[in-house]
Amino acid sequence: MRNIRIIIEYDGTNYSGWQTQKNAPSIQEEIQKAIKKITGEYVNLIGAGRTDAGVHAKGQTANFITTSKIPADKFAWALNSVLQEDIVVKESEEVSLDFHSRYDAKSKIYSYTIHRGLFPPAIMRNYVYHVNYGKQIDIQELKKAAESFIGTHDFRAFMAAGSNVVNTVRTIYSIDIEEKEDFIKIFYHGNGFLYNMVRIITGTIVYASIGKLNSKDIPDIIRKGDRKLAGITFPPHGLCLEKVFYD
Amino acid sequence: MRNIRIIIEYDGTNYSGWQTQKNAPSIQEEIQKAIKKITGEYVNLIGAGRTDAGVHAKGQTANFITTSKIPADKFAWALNSVLQEDIVVKESEEVSLDFHSRYDAKSKIYSYTIHRGLFPPAIMRNYVYHVNYGKQIDIQELKKAAESFIGTHDFRAFMAAGSNVVNTVRTIYSIDIEEKEDFIKIFYHGNGFLYNMVRIITGTIVYASIGKLNSKDIPDIIRKGDRKLAGITFPPHGLCLEKVFYD
Repeated sequence: MRNIRIIIEYDGTNYSGWQTQKNAPSIQEEIQKAIKKITGEYVNLIGAGRTDAGVHAKGQTANFITTSKIPADKFAWALNSVLQEDIVVKESEEVSLDFHSRYDAKSKIYSYTIHRGLFPPAIMRNYVYHVNYGKQIDIQELKKAAESFIGTHDFRAFMAAGSNVVNTVRTIYSIDIEEKEDFIKIFYHGNGFLYNMVRIITGTIVYASIGKLNSKDIPDIIRKGDRKLAGITFPPHGLCLEKVFYD
Repeated sequence: MRNIRIIIEYDGTNYSGWQTQKNAPSIQEEIQKAIKKITGEYVNLIGAGRTDAGVHAKGQTANFITTSKIPADKFAWALNSVLQEDIVVKESEEVSLDFHSRYDAKSKIYSYTIHRGLFPPAIMRNYVYHVNYGKQIDIQELKKAAESFIGTHDFRAFMAAGSNVVNTVRTIYSIDIEEKEDFIKIFYHGNGFLYNMVRIITGTIVYASIGKLNSKDIPDIIRKGDRKLAGITFPPHGLCLEKVFYD
């Protein structure tokens, strides 16, 4: 028995998300089927993060237990030869049998990309969220609003309603904002993220950047823990799981 | 009668190219149909450059004559409301009746993007050309090879076989090379480009960058004007018409 860890890039546009759902193919299922094709085994593929429908990844990490004798680094080649071109295994290696992609993840980087042009872009349309009030975004205000989120907080107010996680305390190490032409890309590095947390924080800081919300009120919104006081949940297709860190 | 100039961004993946072809929709045709929908007139849309199937544009420029009374800057809004999301009109304005998008173009910038990772990318797969020898690309050699093309030359050797253009002299003002992660993006600014010229020059300088061709021989290849001595024609999907300049 061997434990194989893979790093995966995917375009989430045509999938129901990482996890298997009714009536729509999932990333997890597609890779499990690819593993079956090359090893004959139907494994349980454990992913570091359960990305939603439409969410992308450049560095999703996952692992599976197999009895296959394929050399560890050859799994990437073998899997890519049977996967669709919108899912690519970038690396494969053998790890210790007790390694678990989700439980052992120390931190993650997600990015969220906003497009602020007058019209939506044709070329990057599946990877960015176009906002029609983009010209009003004040980047200094966006950065100021982002700062309030850095550190260890109870992020209850920034979690999708209906989630049943008990511990809602998380630490955000950094939020970095890059501007290029009409694109604004926000990188979030944290030890973990609640359900929809990146999309809600992004909705909140973008609202602050256009004056729909005062960035001075953000510490209070965090303290009160009321989802209704925070900004809207931005759509999935601007979100990308960039990297997962382990010890 | 008014002459309307539009600037267009498009994802060429699903089209037969700019010009109308048998059995596949073209960008030109799609926009002409959109103009018909909003004005009732079937116009001849003149584009600055006839991009091939799979080639993209961020700044294609085109013009058409209309009797419509729609304010010039509102054409972009009206056209985008009826176009598919992979074709976007970024700007519209009225120009003098004698303006012609192709004949009046003073210069153009094309870009060609190469991906040099171990595996093709999932996310940008339609916009870049993945080469499997990417790790061998020597960027200094690539830049050195590019330099030989700058200036005014007879580019006969860098034109698709079978083209019947008489004057094959063109001027390339600059070739700029940007590297980011596994992507290499090459920008070509010139007064005009022969058929497939950017794709053949890119194939040639990339061959030089991996030692399949000696960059010292490039001036000779240009001088001899023999297509067979130059590198291969790179595929269309890495190419993008970035911008068209007018007086």
